[in-house]
Amino acid sequence: MDTGNLLYAQSGGVTAVINATVCAVIQACQRRKIKVFAARNGIIGALREELFDLGKEDRAMIAALRHTPGGAFGSCRFKLKSLEADRAHYERLIAVLRAHDIRYFLYNGGNDSADTSLKITQIAQALGYPLQVIGVPKTVDNDLPLTDSCPGFGSVAKYTAVSVLEASLDVAAMCESSTKVFVMEVMGRHAGWIAAAAGLAGKRASDPPHIILFPEVPFDEPKFLARVKATVESVGYCTVVVSEGLKNADGKFLAEAGTTDAFGHTQLGGVGPLIAQIVKARLGYKFHWAVPDYLQRSARHIASKVDAEQAYAVGKAAVDYALAGDSGVMPIIRRTSNTPFKWKIVKAPLTKIANIEKKLPPNFITADGFGITAAARRYFEPLIRGEDPPPYDKVSGLPKYAVLKGRLVKKKLPAYPLADR
Amino acid sequence: MDTGNLLYAQSGGVTAVINATVCAVIQACQRRKIKVFAARNGIIGALREELFDLGKEDRAMIAALRHTPGGAFGSCRFKLKSLEADRAHYERLIAVLRAHDIRYFLYNGGNDSADTSLKITQIAQALGYPLQVIGVPKTVDNDLPLTDSCPGFGSVAKYTAVSVLEASLDVAAMCESSTKVFVMEVMGRHAGWIAAAAGLAGKRASDPPHIILFPEVPFDEPKFLARVKATVESVGYCTVVVSEGLKNADGKFLAEAGTTDAFGHTQLGGVGPLIAQIVKARLGYKFHWAVPDYLQRSARHIASKVDAEQAYAVGKAAVDYALAGDSGVMPIIRRTSNTPFKWKIVKAPLTKIANIEKKLPPNFITADGFGITAAARRYFEPLIRGEDPPPYDKVSGLPKYAVLKGRLVKKKLPAYPLADR
Repeated sequence: MDTGNLLYAQSGGVTAVINATVCAVIQACQRRKIKVFAARNGIIGALREELFDLGKEDRAMIAALRHTPGGAFGSCRFKLKSLEADRAHYERLIAVLRAHDIRYFLYNGGNDSADTSLKITQIAQALGYPLQVIGVPKTVDNDLPLTDSCPGFGSVAKYTAVSVLEASLDVAAMCESSTKVFVMEVMGRHAGWIAAAAGLAGKRASDPPHIILFPEVPFDEPKFLARVKATVESVGYCTVVVSEGLKNADGKFLAEAGTTDAFGHTQLGGVGPLIAQIVKARLGYKFHWAVPDYLQRSARHIASKVDAEQAYAVGKAAVDYALAGDSGVMPIIRRTSNTPFKWKIVKAPLTKIANIEKKLPPNFITADGFGITAAARRYFEPLIRGEDPPPYDKVSGLPKYAVLKGRLVKKKLPAYPLADR
Repeated sequence: MDTGNLLYAQSGGVTAVINATVCAVIQACQRRKIKVFAARNGIIGALREELFDLGKEDRAMIAALRHTPGGAFGSCRFKLKSLEADRAHYERLIAVLRAHDIRYFLYNGGNDSADTSLKITQIAQALGYPLQVIGVPKTVDNDLPLTDSCPGFGSVAKYTAVSVLEASLDVAAMCESSTKVFVMEVMGRHAGWIAAAAGLAGKRASDPPHIILFPEVPFDEPKFLARVKATVESVGYCTVVVSEGLKNADGKFLAEAGTTDAFGHTQLGGVGPLIAQIVKARLGYKFHWAVPDYLQRSARHIASKVDAEQAYAVGKAAVDYALAGDSGVMPIIRRTSNTPFKWKIVKAPLTKIANIEKKLPPNFITADGFGITAAARRYFEPLIRGEDPPPYDKVSGLPKYAVLKGRLVKKKLPAYPLADR
């Protein structure tokens, strides 16, 4: 079985721990004596035949990937369409794989990538090219079905809960004569997973965050303002966490930057300042707002240990599955016990994952629409457990993140120009 | 000498390590058998006779203050005016101190607080009340004169450099097909200390941050855009750090929220998104922006060890000075050696500190106005050295920050209503 090479590629937004997955993939391949390549900038590099030769990298740097945020080989927002519409791309991809004797393809991403993985499985079969395709889960959005959680999510959840806790201690100290309302915008285009995780920062009603604005709950301005006012009057200040995907009663995003990304999704941003301005205009309170943006999903320094371990585990399992002859599957996380928290990796078919978004369960949101329930806490809490700090340089005071050589293998095929989309 | 009680109060914006200073003050007082109070919400609580009785707090919680961000007893933005204009306030303050036999007053803040400390020294002398007044340095703005750095700054500097490094790894991974320009706004109303510290994230010209926009350098849009374009074309992406205090050639802030704080300072915010929009409008690049706001100054989880140690040291020295009979002075940090980095606490007169802002030295900014020099690195680097993580709760995954009882002492004087300002 163990013949041929393996290609790993990343897709979509990167995370604080996706490189832990790469690290596991490379180390598993090295143990199994399988030659491993990584596509530069995801599927784009695979089509361009831009493949990093990971055999040229130092083992210490490969090990350092485990604690390095971002995507070490680059990722992309480039979605392959249907087999009919993008036939040329799929055939080119198989040609590149064939040219480098790649029999195993691991695609690390979210919903879109699972769909692409599935299509690649199909085209390989149609073309009679022997290929094991494994989807590997990754997304801070935590919206993949079947898996208990998605690698990357636990770390953004921890960053968010810790940041809300810390910033609220600051606001609490100043509220008598300064800022009374603090608004923090978090990621989550269609589902409030990250917003909900912010709720872990406090347990009592007087604890921050006092109000969470979920994409799942249409924004009700009068009700929101009444809660802000009541909170400031009873607690002294009010911390609000708002999801970038907050919508009004008509289902429209409250804030739209007016541009779209390569997948046609609207680029959001700025609902935090908007909510803060509404508070100021209606209630007159002094406000501050924060939009951590990429900081939240790249904050490896405050990664969740559980998340880092799961990210590593799915990478290792993906290689195991591929070499065992599986294809069209994804290693997912199954929670086998909540107290104590236990989990294992199991296999799931991509057909049950591709293009399916897991929504935040309605029973995770309190009846008033502004907080999280005990059921939500039971789910979220284990995911942010434990710390896994990177090593720091004693002189610079900065984390020692991996720096790779990034040697590309010699191309064997003609150039393949890709138009911008 | 060791008779009477000690009152500690905080003023102005809080930091990730100001509670380390409180911790030192309380522990030093306990060792010296001095009864210690903390004013609730700074000078406001001192005027209202709202004094926390720190003898009621558990020693373990006092010790936990060393790693707890925010201001444990509350701070304020409330500046006492001249002795003539605010005579009633000053006399009330002395009455409160007299009522509780307080002979030592420690005021922990920045420039404004040093000025207030000085005036309190003067009124106590004028009224014949024996009082030792010690200013204790604290400000993320790092703009106090004489001292090598200000407690609180090293930690925001470390947070900023680490965040720029991590977010840039994310952008670098995505830039081929997604975000090309990332803009991060940092604090610093009048001086670019924090913006400059961001420069520690990288050393080579191709390293992020590629452009720093300092308050000291008037914004030159064509020159800025040309640099963004050149960076995207050579590096693939461009990370921009912009100080909230960025001004145009006329000396006006680029972004003003239109409100002022209690000291009459204009409330800033939003220059990050503004710069990002300029890039989009002129160059068409896809952008993201982040405004960490309070997150940067409260991020105790990534505090600098040097900063935490210095914050503790100034608190301890302040008690020593007060009990030794000093008044009208401040413990400051003197750097005695750069390699290896060594420092000690020395005494400085408040007359040479009050209302004087230390500007970023011109030789810290590169000739092009967009980066930091080797001299700047030599100054900044030791300040972000070392980590001092808080303990974490094994179940919640959150830092274990101090929770105090906050018992107020019984009032002895009539109420003193304070009008809002």
